[in-house]
Amino acid sequence: MNPEGIPEQLGWIFGRRSVRAYGPGAIGDDQVEILLRAAMAAPSAVAKDPWRFVVVRDRSLLARLAGNLSNGSMLDQAPLGIVVAGDLHAAHDRQLSYLLQDCAAAIENLLLSAHGLGLGACWLGIHPRQHRIDFVTNLLCLPEAVIPVACIALGQPAETKEPRSRFNPAWVHRDRW
Amino acid sequence: MNPEGIPEQLGWIFGRRSVRAYGPGAIGDDQVEILLRAAMAAPSAVAKDPWRFVVVRDRSLLARLAGNLSNGSMLDQAPLGIVVAGDLHAAHDRQLSYLLQDCAAAIENLLLSAHGLGLGACWLGIHPRQHRIDFVTNLLCLPEAVIPVACIALGQPAETKEPRSRFNPAWVHRDRW
Repeated sequence: MNPEGIPEQLGWIFGRRSVRAYGPGAIGDDQVEILLRAAMAAPSAVAKDPWRFVVVRDRSLLARLAGNLSNGSMLDQAPLGIVVAGDLHAAHDRQLSYLLQDCAAAIENLLLSAHGLGLGACWLGIHPRQHRIDFVTNLLCLPEAVIPVACIALGQPAETKEPRSRFNPAWVHRDRW
Repeated sequence: MNPEGIPEQLGWIFGRRSVRAYGPGAIGDDQVEILLRAAMAAPSAVAKDPWRFVVVRDRSLLARLAGNLSNGSMLDQAPLGIVVAGDLHAAHDRQLSYLLQDCAAAIENLLLSAHGLGLGACWLGIHPRQHRIDFVTNLLCLPEAVIPVACIALGQPAETKEPRSRFNPAWVHRDRW
């Protein structure tokens, strides 16, 4: 383990950081497919896989997302965004909790695989903000039961950040609280 | 990319599988700390880090968890379990949605890092099942605002599974649904 307590063999997990600045350079459909394969390699409750994905490359759609998602302005520079949503009819027992947990696990895999491919990515929250949910639902023509959870901005990284953890020993308990 | 469409440079993400059978062999506190550092390297909404962890090694507690969590019987053979919970007072805007998403991202990092260390792990759901929430809350003396999300069983793997994705092209849309 290095001085910051980050084990070198797990650098791929500690090196993933939110990248909000993107330079020129496309992201091909082959790379997008790898990201989606990684996302769908996550576990889901009872393997119901309620996750759904909308790959947004249309510049006018990206501009509208950039203008309506909090801290989402980088989408105006990004070659693409991936909206991750959950189908409530597909989720285990139609529970929103499972939908959110399953989508979040898939998103984390997507972010880690983007980092593994040398891409930059940032998680932009949609759920539970109702005005963002409504906006994205209307913009992307989502069916009624499909709930947008987040939009992942993706691009060639134009900023570098050091690996880190926000490890806090105060958040760890032994056997009982 | 190999014939199954799994890129070899991302083997660590596709090779993580739910491992439910454990052999003899302890997991030291040094390895547990790496797992927790990896979990806390996940992103969280507005970096509020609402995740909390209870590392359970006590055999009587593990036996009670094994008997009360659905499909959790492997906890009776596991050297430890880690209960991941969220503090609703710490979550962004005190929203359960953010708590669940943040904890799920941390859990996925924990599972991936366990795989990276050669350990076996399995995600056992707690939230949103109220009887499981109440049982774990009482057993581990969780404060009122701390909501248990899942218990991660951990051990030396006694089964091997092939890397895979459950990639389904029908779950992918372009620009609009």
